[in-house]
Amino acid sequence: MREVFHQSLEDVQGRLVEIAELVTIAIDKATRAFGTSDVGLAEEVIEADSIIDEKAIALDELAIEILARQQPVARDLRIVVSALRMSASLERMGDIAEHIAQLTRMRFPERAIPKGLKSTFLKMGELDVEVARQLTELLRTQDLAITEEIRNADDDIDDLHVSVFEKVLSDSWQGEASATVDATLASRYHERFADHAVSVAKKVAYLSTGDWTPATDTIEIVVGPTQ
Amino acid sequence: MREVFHQSLEDVQGRLVEIAELVTIAIDKATRAFGTSDVGLAEEVIEADSIIDEKAIALDELAIEILARQQPVARDLRIVVSALRMSASLERMGDIAEHIAQLTRMRFPERAIPKGLKSTFLKMGELDVEVARQLTELLRTQDLAITEEIRNADDDIDDLHVSVFEKVLSDSWQGEASATVDATLASRYHERFADHAVSVAKKVAYLSTGDWTPATDTIEIVVGPTQ
Repeated sequence: MREVFHQSLEDVQGRLVEIAELVTIAIDKATRAFGTSDVGLAEEVIEADSIIDEKAIALDELAIEILARQQPVARDLRIVVSALRMSASLERMGDIAEHIAQLTRMRFPERAIPKGLKSTFLKMGELDVEVARQLTELLRTQDLAITEEIRNADDDIDDLHVSVFEKVLSDSWQGEASATVDATLASRYHERFADHAVSVAKKVAYLSTGDWTPATDTIEIVVGPTQ
Repeated sequence: MREVFHQSLEDVQGRLVEIAELVTIAIDKATRAFGTSDVGLAEEVIEADSIIDEKAIALDELAIEILARQQPVARDLRIVVSALRMSASLERMGDIAEHIAQLTRMRFPERAIPKGLKSTFLKMGELDVEVARQLTELLRTQDLAITEEIRNADDDIDDLHVSVFEKVLSDSWQGEASATVDATLASRYHERFADHAVSVAKKVAYLSTGDWTPATDTIEIVVGPTQ
């Protein structure tokens, strides 16, 4: 029974890694599309999100089947419940990549990336892609050292998120309302993407260390510099 | 054993109702604070969110304990797993109420509610409060007729969300960048709050009808009129 259970867990882990890989592709394409106004690339991300959704639902069904058939207890049970939560976070990360792609498509042929914030959003995009890659590696290897890298990248993204609002709310901001809307939404999407990655990383760490950090415990920068 | 299980489910249902009641109080105070720039009321919401978080975590622990001790299968298992997901959605709704309160506090003593959008945001706030009340009633009574009311209110909120962007992106918009930022974030918070309520309502309906709608299936209006 233990043997069967551990085979099931390997299946769960493999599916989490697979979904994280798809999320990494999605955020990489979405942030490149956003930076270069590449509507074709944006369309690819929007099309592919349903695959992430389907794989997350399939993983949830597998987890429920494991609960029903193998009735794990103690740590084994928490691993399966955590997998349900990780799949929800990964699915949400895919949605956010899609939102960034939708912003790009909505503004096309104009640029979605607001004037004066190009370097900031390019950096945020690179960091979100790096976070997704690190999260995939963490899920594959369970190397907890990666968790710290994800937290550090999230801190850098939070700083950039704050800097976007400092820029938009400064006297020097010349952007029209549409640019302000885009900067506000895009910055929030980038920041939330990394928050979800931190939330997944904390669950992986918890499963290794038993040090439970509730899903509610990610630091969320709600809005600009005065917070 | 069935008897014990049904007592456990009643406990779970009672806790979901209790959390939904706290979320209703939070969104009622948060939207009134946002509409009247009442920073004291906003502070109450921000303070109280940790109670919602704690109750959601306690409910999750109870659900995991039920899985471990009573090892439900089939529909019983799905009820417990759904409770975990509903608690996550309710916890998120509490976070969103807190975000609306934080916007109010951040702009104080100025008004967080942007000029020209007061009636729109007052209406969105009333609808979000109504949705939270209806959701609490749905969780208490399992009366599926309420699900339709929640979907209809969510549709109205989506229309108001779109109208906010139509206003902000129109030539008549005179708001400064800070007002555009506030309108963008506040409108998204209001819209997402109702999305989460629809997601919970769908799970309640599923548990009664077996008609599963994945959590990923809520219609999310990402941004303004051109979508």
